[in-house]
Parts: sequence; structure tokens; C-alpha cells
Amino acid sequence: MPNHPAGVLAPKGFKSGATYCGLKTYGAGKLDLGLLVSSVPCAAAGVYTQSLVRAAPVLLDSEITGQGTAQAVIFNAGIANACTGEQGYYDAQEMQQLAGEKLGIPANYVLVTSTGVIGHMLPMEKIRSGVEAITLGEGEAAGTQASFCIMTTDTRPKRAVARFTWDGKVCFIGGMCKGAGMIHPNMATMLCYLTTDVAATPAFLQAVLSELAQETFNMITVDGDTSTNDSVLLLANGLSGTPVLGDGASPEKEQVFKEALREVMTYLAKEIARDGEGATKLMEVWVRGAASVKEARLAVRTVAGSMLTKSAVYGGDPNWGRILAAAGRSGANFDPTRTDIYIGDVPLMLAGTPQPFEKSQAQAALTGPEVYITVDLHAGEGEAVGWGCDLTQEYVVINSEYET
Amino acid sequence: MPNHPAGVLAPKGFKSGATYCGLKTYGAGKLDLGLLVSSVPCAAAGVYTQSLVRAAPVLLDSEITGQGTAQAVIFNAGIANACTGEQGYYDAQEMQQLAGEKLGIPANYVLVTSTGVIGHMLPMEKIRSGVEAITLGEGEAAGTQASFCIMTTDTRPKRAVARFTWDGKVCFIGGMCKGAGMIHPNMATMLCYLTTDVAATPAFLQAVLSELAQETFNMITVDGDTSTNDSVLLLANGLSGTPVLGDGASPEKEQVFKEALREVMTYLAKEIARDGEGATKLMEVWVRGAASVKEARLAVRTVAGSMLTKSAVYGGDPNWGRILAAAGRSGANFDPTRTDIYIGDVPLMLAGTPQPFEKSQAQAALTGPEVYITVDLHAGEGEAVGWGCDLTQEYVVINSEYET
Repeated sequence: MPNHPAGVLAPKGFKSGATYCGLKTYGAGKLDLGLLVSSVPCAAAGVYTQSLVRAAPVLLDSEITGQGTAQAVIFNAGIANACTGEQGYYDAQEMQQLAGEKLGIPANYVLVTSTGVIGHMLPMEKIRSGVEAITLGEGEAAGTQASFCIMTTDTRPKRAVARFTWDGKVCFIGGMCKGAGMIHPNMATMLCYLTTDVAATPAFLQAVLSELAQETFNMITVDGDTSTNDSVLLLANGLSGTPVLGDGASPEKEQVFKEALREVMTYLAKEIARDGEGATKLMEVWVRGAASVKEARLAVRTVAGSMLTKSAVYGGDPNWGRILAAAGRSGANFDPTRTDIYIGDVPLMLAGTPQPFEKSQAQAALTGPEVYITVDLHAGEGEAVGWGCDLTQEYVVINSEYET
Repeated sequence: MPNHPAGVLAPKGFKSGATYCGLKTYGAGKLDLGLLVSSVPCAAAGVYTQSLVRAAPVLLDSEITGQGTAQAVIFNAGIANACTGEQGYYDAQEMQQLAGEKLGIPANYVLVTSTGVIGHMLPMEKIRSGVEAITLGEGEAAGTQASFCIMTTDTRPKRAVARFTWDGKVCFIGGMCKGAGMIHPNMATMLCYLTTDVAATPAFLQAVLSELAQETFNMITVDGDTSTNDSVLLLANGLSGTPVLGDGASPEKEQVFKEALREVMTYLAKEIARDGEGATKLMEVWVRGAASVKEARLAVRTVAGSMLTKSAVYGGDPNWGRILAAAGRSGANFDPTRTDIYIGDVPLMLAGTPQPFEKSQAQAALTGPEVYITVDLHAGEGEAVGWGCDLTQEYVVINSEYET
């Protein structure tokens, strides 16, 4: 159920609430502080930025998901609490404590995420009164609030829900995420919250989340810049009453769960790329025939991240030489004289040879809201897909005016 | 002598000529085919793109400079002769032959460079009559013509001359280059022609050229995209009558030559970054205190290439968090809590702690035509400098309309 407003509140037992406490200097009046909580403790997993520069909430959350149990997330937009030194870490801890006290749960069951400007201290006074002001709710209205609350330069909320039935019991996976700039696949470069009412071991959740992050959030790029705050959090509270995944007793159910989670994560990843700052088009890049999956992913990321490819897609220009040039510098090993390149269904180069094509046909394949680029390297069996967006004047406008 | 119009014709014994033969579809009427020739054979060296996808002229030239002798270069702008398969290689060879016949020298003494759109075949009929039409000349007028002839999206010619006197004999190094887009440090991502009338062994020339390319052309970035045609060519004809460099007899002269060549290459590299497509500002990035020179260079390139840093520089926004975030993903190893960041002379972060600063002062440091960013990692002795430019709406306009 793409973009279902319930999002993270679709699974049983999750509530959320959000308020405006004055952190977002832009779009004042919007929500900027929120809580997400399960009625019972959850198995928890997380995947985080690989940047050396990690925001305080990332340091805190990776400890918690490392232990495998969490019950709530407190989140704010407007200020990233990154590059804020020791005080930033204390502030993140205080956010934990404030949320724990309000919810009546242990502080170390509370995850914290922050997003926004780097290098500013959180105004803790505002956060203290903000936490008090939050009212928790269920269903679509509260889910919608939460998904708006995490937005910075996003132009729209990003939510997804998957549903499946096991032994007569209905199960859900819900998700919401934010991200539009500082997006590049080195961990997800964004924030994502995933909830489910299935039961699972933390180890199983962590393994599935790490694997799927590679295929989904790690395969998107907007501008090649990675963030200090990337976090993908997964909470499983088991309230659907189904067997525990991860103990080996239900391999088929584990597979169903994984496919449903893949669906949610893929949808959300594409939503981030589609909403890339200033973007007008989603770019889906397939690389086939690479020497390995790793090399296929390298090539996908480089093509999708190339400023020249992105500009050509914006202009509707079938300038396939830029695609080949990007693959050539990606680190993937291949023979350019065997390579095929398609835009949409139009072959532009086959076996290294430029093909005659109707320019109008190629331009048509570049005109819609989604543009498909396929590169077949004919070097092996490795295949990957990833997503980016076009580069527009608007990207520059947004990012030259973000802070000031 | 920065931007001296004589450029590659400053050293003794070099001539050049240029014509318009109809390859440039944009700016028709400009020059697009040229010849550069020495009156005697030269020791030759070259440095080339590291992309897997190498244009036909690159394949040809790397053979010639591998043998160490050349006497002329034929060059065209408008079409890159890249991704053109076997026919492209034959076309590059025919360009060699046409030039060799016209100049009365062996075809395998002729280097070939092409720049422009990827994936188009050269219209050899136009090149044949173009070569016939070229008239060779000396001095500033011919040097100016040559430097205009290699331009694509460059807004101005890029030339430099260095001069020194040895034992009463005046020696010159001349250079010209082109490049504005598809610029990223993985080899120089541009074309550069260097001439000198000193005498030197090919091995000495190659060693010096390779080393200096690392510090100069490999330290510039415009858009992170590398080219299929990058080439830096160095021809030394020995006509100044000075001793042969490279046989160990003149270590001091070798050092003087190297410094003069460094000066020419640094100037030209900065000219390329300054003329980055759509750019309004040159960005000079220093990284000090890295664990090694290699890591310092990694960090310089990542900061200078970051779309977010580039956008902030354009907007005059002292958003130093983006600089730290770029360093954090660069691969350089450091402790963010010990790091200093300056824009111009204004310290924005010291020892990982945001500094109070006058916004107007920081913005002033971002306002001029040259912006200086310094990052001190306090992790070792490694130091590097590199150059980029700001990212503007105009970059997107240029690159969404380049081919069509």
C-alpha cells in the first residue's frame, strides 16, 4: 500500500504524536518534534551512516540497537545535532530521558533521531516543553502527522505499508522516511523508521535489515553527499501473535516477511530519489552483465550520481556518451566495445557501436516522470538496480539558500 | 607570465595554425582544427585519463609518448572521437597521416587530440580539407588562435608561459589547455599541451610530468565526471641549446625546470577550475594535518567536489557542516572532535567545536572571486591543496542543452 497515510502506525500497538516546538526556522508552524512508541518492548535493529562524522543520535542509537531492544523513538527536524561535541551527546541523552519519563518506559529503550542543519546546538528548553505538549494518537491522522514532522527540504511525506496474513492473523509492516538532499549510497543517507507487529529475534531483524538496506536505500543518490545522521530503524513488537521469526522454525514466513520488508524499503527508497532536491524526474538505472553484483552496484551508483547524466536527463538529451563515461570511471571492469546502452526501450549503443535512432523516440523515453537507463556490460552475471533524479537549477537554488 | 598569448609558441622552434572546418555545431565560425609542430623532433611525455573508456586519440598518443619521440600535435574540438569503435581509431590514424604529409614528417611523430561530444564519428572529409587549409604561423597571433581552437564550453582561452635563463641562454616553457566540464581528478580530465625548448630525456620528462600532474591537474574538480579524452602532452625540442636534463649532470637545472613547469601547470589547472561550467568563483581547498598526503588529497577532492559545498559557496553561505560532512565521507582518517575549519581567515570550527563568528565576516570571505577553505585534521603531517568552483544554475542549463 504505497504512501498509505497510516505508515508506521499500521502495525498493531504503535502510537505517535507530533508538535511544533520552534526548531524549524523554515516553514514555521510545521511539526518538528515527534514520538513513536510501541505498547510493549520491541526487538530492534538499525543501520547507520558510514561517515566518520556521526551525529550524537547515531552514536546513541547504535548502542541501543546493538543490544536489540527498544520501545520508542523521539525525533526532531530542523537541527541535526551533528558536530555538536559532548554537549550534543548529553542533549540526545536528555531527549531519551524526557521521552522515557513521558511514556513511562526506561530511557534506554528510547531511540533518538535528529535531522536538519549541522553544527547547531539543540535548544533544549524548547524540546522540553515540546515533549510535554505531544499527544499520542493512532491511525491515519497520527501517522500523517508523524510523517510530516520528520520533513526538512522534502516536498511531501514518504510512507508505505505492507500487509500479509499468516494462519488467519493479519500482519503489517509500516514505514516512513525523510530525505531529499545529502543523499548518496553509503548507508542510506536519510532517516527511516520501520515498524511491524510480527515477532522476531533482534539478530534476524538486523540481518534482514542490513541486507535489504544494501539493495534499497544504499542504491539511491541525489547529490553524492552523505549525511552525518543516516539511520534506518526497525522495531518489531510481536503483537500480531505470530511465531517468532529468526529461530529457524518458520523459514517460509521469514521469506514472506523479508519480501514484504523489501517492498516497503524499495518503495521508500524510490520516493526519496523521486523527491531529490529540485528534481523533476526519477531515474532508474539497471546494470546487467557486470563481473559481480558489487561491480554492478558501483556502476549503477556512478551513472545515477553523475552530474552530467543527471543534467542530460533533466534536459531530455539522449547523450549516452555521458552514461558510458560514468560507467568507465565507476571502478567496474568491462570492455567498452561489448557494452550496450538503452534509454527506455531505445538502444543507443550496442556492442560499443553507436546506433542510429530517432531522436524524437529517445527524447520521448526521457520525457516522462520516470526515466529508465539500462547498461549491459556483457562481462558476467552481476546485476543491480538503483535510483537517482535529474539535476535542475532548483537544486542549486535550494542549496545555496538552505541555512542563511 | 600567466595567460601570455604566445602560450605553446613561446619556446623556440614551435609553430601552429588553426582553421574552422565545420566540426563545432555551436559557435560556428570559431576555430575547430589545429596543428602544433616543432621544427625538430622532440622528447615527448604524456599523461592520460584513467577511465576504462578511452577515446581513440588517447590510445594512439599513449603509444607514441611511450616511445618517447614526437614532433607535432593535430587537434580538433567539437567531436571527441570517443566511443567510436575501430573506425574511430582508423580516423585518428588518418589524422596523423594527414598532418604528417602536410608537415613532411613521419606520421608516427604526430600526436592527436580530440574534444567535444562523445559517440559521434568524425566527418573525415571536413578534416581532410581542413588540414589543407591550415597555415602555420609563429608568435602571439598564432598562439592565440591555437588556444581558441581547442575550446568547447570554455568561456576563455587558457595559456601560460614560464621563462628562465641558463648560462646566458633564455629558455621557455609554454602551455595551453582546455576544460570546463567533465572535470575531476583522475588524471586531468582535460586537454593540455606543454612545449619547451630545453633538452631533456623522455624518461625525465615523463617522470616530472607524472609527478606534477598529481599535484596540479589531478587536484581540480568541476563536476566529478571524468572524461574519455584526458591528455596532457609535453614536447621538449632542445632548441635553447642547454644541456640535456635527465642524465644526472644538471640536478640544479632539473629542479629549476621542474619548478617552472609546476608554475605553468598550477596556473593552467586553476584556470580550468575557475572556468568550470557556469562557475562564478574559484574555490581553493587546503587540507593540513592529514595522516598522509594521499589522505589530504582525498579530503581536498571530496570537499572541493561536494555539490553541497559548491552550492553553499555559490550562495555565500558559511555552512561549514557541509565541509566537515564531505571530509567525513572522503576516506581520510581523522577525529572530528580535533578538526578545525576556516573559510578565508575566519575560524568556523576549532577542535570540533562550532565557533561564534560574525556572519557578515564569514559571508565576506565567501563573496570574492576566490574562496579559500582550510581544514586542519590534526591527524598527521599530510598536506594538499586543490581547486574547484561553485555550482550554479548555469551549470545545469549548459549541461541539459549541450548536445541537442
